[in-house]
Amino acid sequence: MMEETVGLAAVTVLGVLEQAYFSLQVIYSRRKHSVSPPATSGPPEFERVFRAQANCSEYFPIFIVVLWTSGVFFSQGLSSVCGLLYLHARLRYFRGYSQSAQGRLAPLYFSAQVLWALIGFSSLGVFFTFCRVYLNLDLLHGLCCA
Amino acid sequence: MMEETVGLAAVTVLGVLEQAYFSLQVIYSRRKHSVSPPATSGPPEFERVFRAQANCSEYFPIFIVVLWTSGVFFSQGLSSVCGLLYLHARLRYFRGYSQSAQGRLAPLYFSAQVLWALIGFSSLGVFFTFCRVYLNLDLLHGLCCA
Amino acid sequence: MMEETVGLAAVTVLGVLEQAYFSLQVIYSRRKHSVSPPATSGPPEFERVFRAQANCSEYFPIFIVVLWTSGVFFSQGLSSVCGLLYLHARLRYFRGYSQSAQGRLAPLYFSAQVLWALIGFSSLGVFFTFCRVYLNLDLLHGLCCA
Ligand SMILES: N[C@@H](CCC(=O)N[C@@H](CS)C(=O)NCC(=O)O)C(=O)O
Ligand SMILES: N[C@@H](CCC(=O)N[C@@H](CS)C(=O)NCC(=O)O)C(=O)O
Ligand SMILES: N[C@@H](CCC(=O)N[C@@H](CS)C(=O)NCC(=O)O)C(=O)O
Repeated sequence: MMEETVGLAAVTVLGVLEQAYFSLQVIYSRRKHSVSPPATSGPPEFERVFRAQANCSEYFPIFIVVLWTSGVFFSQGLSSVCGLLYLHARLRYFRGYSQSAQGRLAPLYFSAQVLWALIGFSSLGVFFTFCRVYLNLDLLHGLCCA
Repeated sequence: MMEETVGLAAVTVLGVLEQAYFSLQVIYSRRKHSVSPPATSGPPEFERVFRAQANCSEYFPIFIVVLWTSGVFFSQGLSSVCGLLYLHARLRYFRGYSQSAQGRLAPLYFSAQVLWALIGFSSLGVFFTFCRVYLNLDLLHGLCCA
Repeated sequence: MMEETVGLAAVTVLGVLEQAYFSLQVIYSRRKHSVSPPATSGPPEFERVFRAQANCSEYFPIFIVVLWTSGVFFSQGLSSVCGLLYLHARLRYFRGYSQSAQGRLAPLYFSAQVLWALIGFSSLGVFFTFCRVYLNLDLLHGLCCA
């Protein structure tokens, strides 16, 4: 079990470290622009950093969930590579958004594409497993040997 | 292992698709009402859509966590059914909230009840497993054969 | 498999109950201060409760993810204890923040330390598993018997 998931676990830990980095940037930005909690509005520079972290946090559970579903039910290698691409795109999203609202768009589109790929792999994996378990039909093996 | 979780995985993928749908609605609403990020306030129509998605995102990790705990430690079938009910309630919540603040209430109460059911099943499952593993006491089997 | 994770599952259910408690507090505070959704701003007392719950929700997926990674790949006992400490710190965070912005700081620092510990255990666990699976090198056993 553990050798089939250790790559996913590594990407997961990296993702957590990235989220920790984003949170620290919000804390620094709060200090720099004197925006004390519970306030969440302030100069545009602060608000962009604040929203960048909020947006990444919002998508983090979705990312983890499709990373693991796709990795366990479809392919660990493929999912881990997509996971690394996603995390890199989110880093560029955060940096781009911190600089200008426009700067967030290109990495956002890319991260969304990676997420759709992971959703696709998850769906395929779940579908193949359903066929194998409930219809006794090994589609994946059948396709490869057709 | 995989046959005992494939139903949960299917509900999970559906849940992710629902979250993606909610996010897209926020993006459309931003365009329609010209509310460019990082702004999060605007006309009430936009704010209701924005908050509906934020509220669903906030509960999404909680939902996934109890779906799987209840599904692995208690019953996959029961959890998957509750999962589908929850996702349907959240769709009605989103649509209701988008129309009026009042419209969110009925589906919210229902979704909360389903969540409490999943929390109850999770607690029972964890409790029974504790008894079985640490006290060598098979309560579930004992109950059925009493 | 289930005896190696039932402790983590128990902490997880506790965490979900805590999140439910925080949500209920926001609902009570909305009623008390007449802040109807979709509004999120109001008197400072309300805004602190609102932000306390938002902050705890933001960290909840991160917490669950490192709890399980550290528990599965490193040590269930150690992770569960850290999990309980984290949940207790978050309760004090919520209560402190509800009273004053200053009151959130001490429990926040403590909860962050526990989170870093869980991230450290996760990293170690993933690293050891990598060595064992891909390099055929049992570091943990090697260390103990050195
Ligand atoms: N979303 C958080 C990210 C960083 C964070 O966790 N900050 C700590 C220390 S300033 C906090 O207690 N924030 C209060 C809050 O989120 O309302 C924020 O806006 O501050
Ligand atoms: N919560 C998001 C949901 C949709 C989303 O992910 N939007 C993208 C494209 S407009 C974004 O970058 N949002 C910026 C933000 O969340 O601050 C929002 O408010 O926009
Ligand atoms: N973040 C939520 C926490 C509590 C909750 O789930 N409230 C329900 C009933 S008042 C809701 O529909 N909130 C609307 C919202 O989050 O915009 C809030 O601010 O209200």
